[in-house]
Amino acid sequence: MTKRVLGIDPGLLHTGWAVVDTAGQTRRYIASGVILPKPKMEMAQRLTTIFRELSKICETFQPDECSIEIIFVNKNPKTTLLLGQARAAAIVAVGNYDIPVFEYEPNVIKKALTGAGHADKSAVDKMVQLLLPNAHPKTPDEADAIAIALAHTNMVRYL
Amino acid sequence: MTKRVLGIDPGLLHTGWAVVDTAGQTRRYIASGVILPKPKMEMAQRLTTIFRELSKICETFQPDECSIEIIFVNKNPKTTLLLGQARAAAIVAVGNYDIPVFEYEPNVIKKALTGAGHADKSAVDKMVQLLLPNAHPKTPDEADAIAIALAHTNMVRYL
Repeated sequence: MTKRVLGIDPGLLHTGWAVVDTAGQTRRYIASGVILPKPKMEMAQRLTTIFRELSKICETFQPDECSIEIIFVNKNPKTTLLLGQARAAAIVAVGNYDIPVFEYEPNVIKKALTGAGHADKSAVDKMVQLLLPNAHPKTPDEADAIAIALAHTNMVRYL
Repeated sequence: MTKRVLGIDPGLLHTGWAVVDTAGQTRRYIASGVILPKPKMEMAQRLTTIFRELSKICETFQPDECSIEIIFVNKNPKTTLLLGQARAAAIVAVGNYDIPVFEYEPNVIKKALTGAGHADKSAVDKMVQLLLPNAHPKTPDEADAIAIALAHTNMVRYL
């Protein structure tokens, strides 16, 4: 049975997204991209843009499940707050389509892909390239979203 | 000309909301309440509940503008992050109806109502009671949402 996973790498300036199909050991790249709210927009407009664009993506690709990173409180609490708001806008868009949201810690995502929780970015990129040779992400946010979607397909085994 | 303002006091456990009409010096209490996502719900479900309930409120009451408090990074960054996520779910619901969102600092709200930025809660409650004798908030979150809506009507003069 094929399951379709939407991976999201949220951010107020760039929100990466990726759609990956999975059935048993097979994975197929479907689409990916980046949502870019205009820098001049106010906070509320940016959040609404993230919500609306992801709603369209849910409408178009009809994913079965969604995978997203957990945010940790980092050294800059203001950045954490802004990132949390972008993340909530994304979660609400997906939740509104009754798509279950799975949240993973960054090192869990890395481990699911490479076997090592502290793998560096190039190791993650190599695994993504190996598993999905047709994916050609143009930005780091898009690449991260693909990795987040892929990690979920490795986490949950679909038979 | 009458304008209808939706005030929101967001929170993951209790999100207060209030609808107030304003025309010149007149203010009229329309409705208020509290959204209570079930405590057993996961984060994504709670955020989606806040979004859906506020979407229904926008649909029912058709507010012209929305007033919401700005969050500051407080002593507990984890709490700030959770509150930021609840706030984003609320903003996105309103933004999705193309309702402009006005964000105010807590002391600006207090000052708009009582004349003093550091007024205590009972002074705020008294002003709310004076301006809207028909409002009988049952919880502090509902009372705060009414104050947030009222503050906006004092900030923006409608002629």
